[in-house]
Amino acid sequence: MASQEQNELLTRTGPETPMGALMRRYWIPIMLSEELPEPDCPPVRIKILSERLIAFRDTNGELGLIDEFCAHRGVSLWFGRNEEGGIRCPYHGWKYNTKGECLEVPSEPAESGFCQRIKLTAYTLKEKGGIIWAYMGNADDEPELPGFEWMDLPASHVYISKRWQESNYLQAMEGGIDSAHVSFLHSGELVTDKLHQGTKGAQYQRDRMPKFEVVDSSGGLFIGARRNGENDSYYWRITQWIMPWYTMVPPYGDNALNGHAWVPIDDENNFAWTFTYHPTRPLTDEEVETMKAGGGIHTNLIPGTFQPVLNMRNDYGMDRQAQKEGRYYSGIPGIAMQDASLQESMGPIQDRTKENLTSTDNAIIMARQRLRKAAKALEKGALPPGREPNCHKVRSASFVLPVGEAFQDTMMDALTARPGIHHTSI
Amino acid sequence: MASQEQNELLTRTGPETPMGALMRRYWIPIMLSEELPEPDCPPVRIKILSERLIAFRDTNGELGLIDEFCAHRGVSLWFGRNEEGGIRCPYHGWKYNTKGECLEVPSEPAESGFCQRIKLTAYTLKEKGGIIWAYMGNADDEPELPGFEWMDLPASHVYISKRWQESNYLQAMEGGIDSAHVSFLHSGELVTDKLHQGTKGAQYQRDRMPKFEVVDSSGGLFIGARRNGENDSYYWRITQWIMPWYTMVPPYGDNALNGHAWVPIDDENNFAWTFTYHPTRPLTDEEVETMKAGGGIHTNLIPGTFQPVLNMRNDYGMDRQAQKEGRYYSGIPGIAMQDASLQESMGPIQDRTKENLTSTDNAIIMARQRLRKAAKALEKGALPPGREPNCHKVRSASFVLPVGEAFQDTMMDALTARPGIHHTSI
Amino acid sequence: MASQEQNELLTRTGPETPMGALMRRYWIPIMLSEELPEPDCPPVRIKILSERLIAFRDTNGELGLIDEFCAHRGVSLWFGRNEEGGIRCPYHGWKYNTKGECLEVPSEPAESGFCQRIKLTAYTLKEKGGIIWAYMGNADDEPELPGFEWMDLPASHVYISKRWQESNYLQAMEGGIDSAHVSFLHSGELVTDKLHQGTKGAQYQRDRMPKFEVVDSSGGLFIGARRNGENDSYYWRITQWIMPWYTMVPPYGDNALNGHAWVPIDDENNFAWTFTYHPTRPLTDEEVETMKAGGGIHTNLIPGTFQPVLNMRNDYGMDRQAQKEGRYYSGIPGIAMQDASLQESMGPIQDRTKENLTSTDNAIIMARQRLRKAAKALEKGALPPGREPNCHKVRSASFVLPVGEAFQDTMMDALTARPGIHHTSI
Repeated sequence: MASQEQNELLTRTGPETPMGALMRRYWIPIMLSEELPEPDCPPVRIKILSERLIAFRDTNGELGLIDEFCAHRGVSLWFGRNEEGGIRCPYHGWKYNTKGECLEVPSEPAESGFCQRIKLTAYTLKEKGGIIWAYMGNADDEPELPGFEWMDLPASHVYISKRWQESNYLQAMEGGIDSAHVSFLHSGELVTDKLHQGTKGAQYQRDRMPKFEVVDSSGGLFIGARRNGENDSYYWRITQWIMPWYTMVPPYGDNALNGHAWVPIDDENNFAWTFTYHPTRPLTDEEVETMKAGGGIHTNLIPGTFQPVLNMRNDYGMDRQAQKEGRYYSGIPGIAMQDASLQESMGPIQDRTKENLTSTDNAIIMARQRLRKAAKALEKGALPPGREPNCHKVRSASFVLPVGEAFQDTMMDALTARPGIHHTSI
Repeated sequence: MASQEQNELLTRTGPETPMGALMRRYWIPIMLSEELPEPDCPPVRIKILSERLIAFRDTNGELGLIDEFCAHRGVSLWFGRNEEGGIRCPYHGWKYNTKGECLEVPSEPAESGFCQRIKLTAYTLKEKGGIIWAYMGNADDEPELPGFEWMDLPASHVYISKRWQESNYLQAMEGGIDSAHVSFLHSGELVTDKLHQGTKGAQYQRDRMPKFEVVDSSGGLFIGARRNGENDSYYWRITQWIMPWYTMVPPYGDNALNGHAWVPIDDENNFAWTFTYHPTRPLTDEEVETMKAGGGIHTNLIPGTFQPVLNMRNDYGMDRQAQKEGRYYSGIPGIAMQDASLQESMGPIQDRTKENLTSTDNAIIMARQRLRKAAKALEKGALPPGREPNCHKVRSASFVLPVGEAFQDTMMDALTARPGIHHTSI
Repeated sequence: MASQEQNELLTRTGPETPMGALMRRYWIPIMLSEELPEPDCPPVRIKILSERLIAFRDTNGELGLIDEFCAHRGVSLWFGRNEEGGIRCPYHGWKYNTKGECLEVPSEPAESGFCQRIKLTAYTLKEKGGIIWAYMGNADDEPELPGFEWMDLPASHVYISKRWQESNYLQAMEGGIDSAHVSFLHSGELVTDKLHQGTKGAQYQRDRMPKFEVVDSSGGLFIGARRNGENDSYYWRITQWIMPWYTMVPPYGDNALNGHAWVPIDDENNFAWTFTYHPTRPLTDEEVETMKAGGGIHTNLIPGTFQPVLNMRNDYGMDRQAQKEGRYYSGIPGIAMQDASLQESMGPIQDRTKENLTSTDNAIIMARQRLRKAAKALEKGALPPGREPNCHKVRSASFVLPVGEAFQDTMMDALTARPGIHHTSI
């Protein structure tokens, strides 16, 4: 259970909030590169950490992320003309570059210096791994870009999607931290889904009483979930949590690895990112087609939007017959929306003063503590952990160990991203 | 006119409100039995008196009404699996019985006693007369089920429907108390409607200056509306109001009797129940077909919902031509929506500080007084009136009396439910 | 930049606000005459200056504008029966005349005097020039009707439309005051639009650095925008602003004149009126057809409503290809919605504490000052300027003057409405 004060601290991420200040010290995945496909393409409205912004790619291909509204009279620059090295407000032709600097105020004589005094809020963008990343914090302390292994893989090995979720980021991320729910909520898929079918992992996963062992990593947590295996062994699934919003899903057999980022749009919405990648082979055509169609842990989206086709307005496609038969444990089709539907049902911001946590929620409790601690330390000037690229060079894994062996003693290699080496997965 | 303070007292029925406390001391009709048709059928989300709840019928057919949200992390149990004697949260398999007791927390060892400490709010349900009734008050003071005569009639004699109304319950109930409006708002139907057509009552009803005589009953009010008849006689229509939200409509000829309940969903919505019943004969096929199609005082609903097809979003099907011709006095088709449209037009909660009441509103004033008095008495520990089944064993009636004869002196038999005896109606 | 306090003063126009009090001292164009086409036609719900009202035309053709809600129990009189000299509430037959006086309370004996004590808020309406005008201020100080020249022209010379805009009136009106934006936002239309094509004005207009000269008029402002012409001459466009919400658009060639009114519905919505008129000839069939189809500065509306077909819910029909080609400078089709889309994008009420005004915004600054000054003076009892019909007898104009000549010295005739004399326009 969290106090109301703790819940506020954890869930409020707008400007002038401690958690918002913390998150602004990390690189933020805000868009797919393909959302800004070419120089001078249409600008995109985007809200991140409760700030309304415009992203654009200028004539030279340079990326910009600036205040959505023109400094003159407050017009949305979404209506702007992205041309000749900047975005131009269509009302009176004021023009801004990617740094938010005003390049032109046509009505004022150049010599007046008026234009030079105008500047919009602007944030640094970088592009890597098919993602556009923003840094919205103190420029002096800008860290290196994250070092996730999929960012350095060939495009053929990676598939990424982004989905709008109608809830606070925290209850979404806590779903990603919590691997206990898999044996319930996704139990239908463990049997029927092509990705899991027939793997040893899916079989072990049916043990619904996992024991958890959670260990601090430099940038987050190693979350070990232990289930009973055969002959005095344990089946382990290790989920990674990395500050401030990354989670990694343990793999099955030769299937690709999966990771998530849960990025606040505002306090009642988040972007649920899904990164699917295989360290040693291209994804097959079938795998990619399946994901494009909303399979695996990706989602079928309303074209031209990031909103799921199945959402709260249509009861997520609830199928009581499939629920009864156990095909969909909760009655909702699709792994991603199985999670999202339950998380959204908690309300826009879960009231954690009413929760009752158990031993399997330890990782959630520890992640909250690290976030709160980092936010409070930052207020005293201490830069937060988990910003160094090395912190991201980890992997989730699934394996079997003899009873009595601690995964953190013998399996650290399996939990480390090793280029060219297959992940550890059964 | 009511003061703002009185209006608040009367219209706010959530937890921790005096009127909410009062209403929780009565059995509440919350659902049609057919909404939970069989053991282990889908659970139903329902909001009553501003509380979000889940209703379900377990494997043994036992009914449950519990907090909508799982005690663990706040997931809506609407997504739950209703199976094997309880409803199971699909997130981590926590299971609850109809008493809100936690039967299983799979992650915790049974011996930990964790599960035994978890309990959801739960309310008693009973089923009678095709209705599921809830008692949400102090268990020690639970009254007997209501004693309405239709609850003991064969199913063939009764037709019941439920409609969602987008207003506070009070302005809806006041429409049910007020029979003066019939001569105006429903005057078209008095002429054209098969149910009224040709009855003496419909003819007398055209007198638009009724005089009212209102008399306390043990559980509410006898509301007598007197209109001029022939030869020194009066045509009387007696409307019943019974605490806290029941009204009964006076009958026409051999037509069935009708009653309503106006049950708060929250402070801005209510369920308008309609009970149609004939004490001495089955309803005819034609009568039933008509009501199913939204005729009489029932309503044509959007399939799968309790929302009227004609509602504020489509201006209730306003037909100015029919208004001009007098077929629909207000231009809105259908008796129920004629009332509901006007009541919703008052705003979600009518501002009674601006009203100007007349002599024909006496019954409304008296009903408000009794509700306020009962709410205040309850705060001092006095159980409210109108809870004994005997209070419900009344009938509305229509009859002719010589001028000078008081209905309460000679017609009490007509106002009493008498099994097997036809109602008094002209 | 305006302070938050100034912005509040300027933008809040409900009852009990200083700006609302000011606006109530002017005649307000509230409806097209055709919205109340004949005696006893359907009443119309209308919100003006945040007051919810009912407008109707009684049996004698007299116009009424009264409180939307019946004094009895608060039912909307939109459901009322407009018949026999008044509007009758369909609930209990209370009847009101155009003065808001209660004519009948059927349940009460006439001799009780009850009815005589009931009175709804009522405002005076007058009809002229195809418009229904309301006066909502102190009756003792009621001014004469406005004196716009189109109000006295034959109907054949005039075309009027009304459009619902989803923003505060002020940011809409400021768009009408500001003629600097034409060279940008409407530059596509200067080339392609039939109304502008080939005129000298449209050609000069391409100078994107106009200089402004703003001069007080008795009822508002003469706003002169000077652009470079040929041979030591200036091309002038004079925009009129007249208290409290009128603007006039300078003309092109023989095209008709255009004016606007920006009337607050409530603080977040306004009616954008457009008055098109030619002082000396009927509008051609082609001109009228074009306007009916939403051309010129009129708008294509959703039938039966005043809502534009292109609106914020469909991104105003954004056409990025047309934006790229310059056909639509902002990508939005249609002059009116080019303006409205940008104004609505500022938010329901523009935050003027963040604006950065330039020399071309001088007229906006001066109009705000005059409004604030008049509102403050009214609080001290001084009736505001711009109420005399003479103040409206002005014209916008476009002409060429030698460099050095002040328009206000030599062109006052051109800026005066002169019946039967063609406007000054190139």
